[in-house]
Amino acid sequence: MARFEPQDPDYAARVHASFARQIFMVTLGARLTRLEPGLCEIEFDHAHALTQQHGYVHAGATASIADSAGGYAAYTLMPAGSSILSVEFKVNLLAPARGQRFLARGTVVRPGRRLSVCEIEVEAWDDGRATRCLYGLQTVFCLLDRPDVG
Amino acid sequence: MARFEPQDPDYAARVHASFARQIFMVTLGARLTRLEPGLCEIEFDHAHALTQQHGYVHAGATASIADSAGGYAAYTLMPAGSSILSVEFKVNLLAPARGQRFLARGTVVRPGRRLSVCEIEVEAWDDGRATRCLYGLQTVFCLLDRPDVG
Amino acid sequence: MARFEPQDPDYAARVHASFARQIFMVTLGARLTRLEPGLCEIEFDHAHALTQQHGYVHAGATASIADSAGGYAAYTLMPAGSSILSVEFKVNLLAPARGQRFLARGTVVRPGRRLSVCEIEVEAWDDGRATRCLYGLQTVFCLLDRPDVG
Amino acid sequence: MARFEPQDPDYAARVHASFARQIFMVTLGARLTRLEPGLCEIEFDHAHALTQQHGYVHAGATASIADSAGGYAAYTLMPAGSSILSVEFKVNLLAPARGQRFLARGTVVRPGRRLSVCEIEVEAWDDGRATRCLYGLQTVFCLLDRPDVG
Repeated sequence: MARFEPQDPDYAARVHASFARQIFMVTLGARLTRLEPGLCEIEFDHAHALTQQHGYVHAGATASIADSAGGYAAYTLMPAGSSILSVEFKVNLLAPARGQRFLARGTVVRPGRRLSVCEIEVEAWDDGRATRCLYGLQTVFCLLDRPDVG
Repeated sequence: MARFEPQDPDYAARVHASFARQIFMVTLGARLTRLEPGLCEIEFDHAHALTQQHGYVHAGATASIADSAGGYAAYTLMPAGSSILSVEFKVNLLAPARGQRFLARGTVVRPGRRLSVCEIEVEAWDDGRATRCLYGLQTVFCLLDRPDVG
Repeated sequence: MARFEPQDPDYAARVHASFARQIFMVTLGARLTRLEPGLCEIEFDHAHALTQQHGYVHAGATASIADSAGGYAAYTLMPAGSSILSVEFKVNLLAPARGQRFLARGTVVRPGRRLSVCEIEVEAWDDGRATRCLYGLQTVFCLLDRPDVG
Repeated sequence: MARFEPQDPDYAARVHASFARQIFMVTLGARLTRLEPGLCEIEFDHAHALTQQHGYVHAGATASIADSAGGYAAYTLMPAGSSILSVEFKVNLLAPARGQRFLARGTVVRPGRRLSVCEIEVEAWDDGRATRCLYGLQTVFCLLDRPDVG
């Protein structure tokens, strides 16, 4: 992965504050566990409340943390005073989301002033073994003049 | 939209039973409100628990009901004793998910024995006016010999 | 389909001039056959030069005209002095591209100042009967201050 | 990248024979330059016949070689007597396709009996420096009982 230089030295505080306002992440039990320029990891645990008809985690739940992980990976590289919008994402569901814990990772593939492209993926951790259950691509738009406030 | 002939006359009971086992839909407050051969609609209301950093519904929540709506639209046309898996989906987030109520619609575009393709969309209803906030495409795989049981 | 009002009354001349500079469309034998605000149709005929291993037209060739049709559909709604870039597209290949003639249609789903979203599709005409062989979604970016010149 | 074990020891002959029947690859000037289990690279040179309105290579041309590279990467892992179909692909166009030479790489991300998922990308080589101009994901279906013949 390429190394990125953040424009805003306080990117981490800005991202954590925004993540804390994503109440849906609380609903999913998700926590932001790793943040670097161009990279964000979010985790949650298996919960009955998140399951689909076969008892695995619903693909929408894994797509949700993947979308947030990609968005915040892009947001680390954006200037202070900006906010982000997901324009689109595409996910392949490589395996059922079976496991005790799920780790989403967003990685910036192409940073841009306006548009950034991120790779998004989710690993399912089952008895200490990881399986990639979701893999995708996401496009994020930067609103330069609109601070990310509630 | 093309008219489809279901193979299984009891498709509606089969779909409703599977939907009832998607506990994540309960978590989202979602209800299956319309079901026809090749078509499924699922609705939920705005709730604080579903919001992102700007107070709108998180794109992952709208993508989740869109994924279920598309999957069940495809499932109406599948034989008894089968179950479904989402292979992949791609969504464009056309507008913020701002409104009191959200209506997801899945429509089969191409039915197949193994692979079906669905159009998926979500309308945001705000003061009686609908805005399409999500539009996408989904591929669903049919497991012919695996009944959809818990 | 929604009706769109073009900003530039000379949109048709602008689109045709740009299309004429897409030499790859000449290579594919493609012609722009219909243009309205928010809509563009491009056609080509089956040719041996465009085939894949089973003798049908290669999905890349149908995706190419679909990409151009979507881009020009979006371009009809953009101001004079602007140019366009495809940001991303996703296509489902619904059927083999089997036929004598292929018709791609791009339709604007969501126009935007910067980002537009288009539905793109290709019909294969085989003995007078049309089959949709490609269906997809595309995101187009508008470069406001860069005229579309060679 | 994971290492894959091919089922068919003669996979390379099978892939090269199929590629040779893709006349569209001849039209693009494309050559298959690297083949390993789960990996395929295809190259072509800049040509006026492949350009879009700004003089760069058309995104449809780069998407075409990416689609073939992904399909043949998947095909290396399939049994003798099978053939392949692209189900869908999604590409992000990260940069204009500007350069003298283009190298597409397809890499299997998840092999499957029926469905395989590939990462697809194209590098533009301009004065000895590579820029990734296309990045995407593709789903390929295996027709088990249908040999890949003309």
